[in-house]
Amino acid sequence: MKVRVLVSLKAGILDPQGKAVEQGLHGFDFKVEHLRIGRLIEMDIPTYNPDEARAQAQAMCDKLLVNPVMEKATIEVL
Amino acid sequence: MKVRVLVSLKAGILDPQGKAVEQGLHGFDFKVEHLRIGRLIEMDIPTYNPDEARAQAQAMCDKLLVNPVMEKATIEVL
Repeated sequence: MKVRVLVSLKAGILDPQGKAVEQGLHGFDFKVEHLRIGRLIEMDIPTYNPDEARAQAQAMCDKLLVNPVMEKATIEVL
Repeated sequence: MKVRVLVSLKAGILDPQGKAVEQGLHGFDFKVEHLRIGRLIEMDIPTYNPDEARAQAQAMCDKLLVNPVMEKATIEVL
């Protein structure tokens, strides 16, 4: 199954890359606030069971994909 | 409105970072294929009109956020 993991910085963690992009957009006269940049991880997990796919993805987050000190992950099974 | 832009590499563009993470997961005995890493951009656009928020986000993608040669973007208005 196709699984999407959205990894974003926790609230309160400074995001200089996001700040830079936000200022860049202001330079183009776009009105935008609170821009944050995270990681998008897309993958195929070879199972037909959505619950198992989600559990596998959660285990991957815990083992490797996410730094739990600074980041939080949202798992979407597509 | 909260807007999420998912930026991913187009099919056929090599993703060495994704390959490295996939191999790392294989090292932990996870079964996973076709892992690709992209960017997640979250922001607030100060309007209450979802269509306008989407149009603004699309314009930002065209101007700054996305490299149309290598990347494609999916816009989600939340």
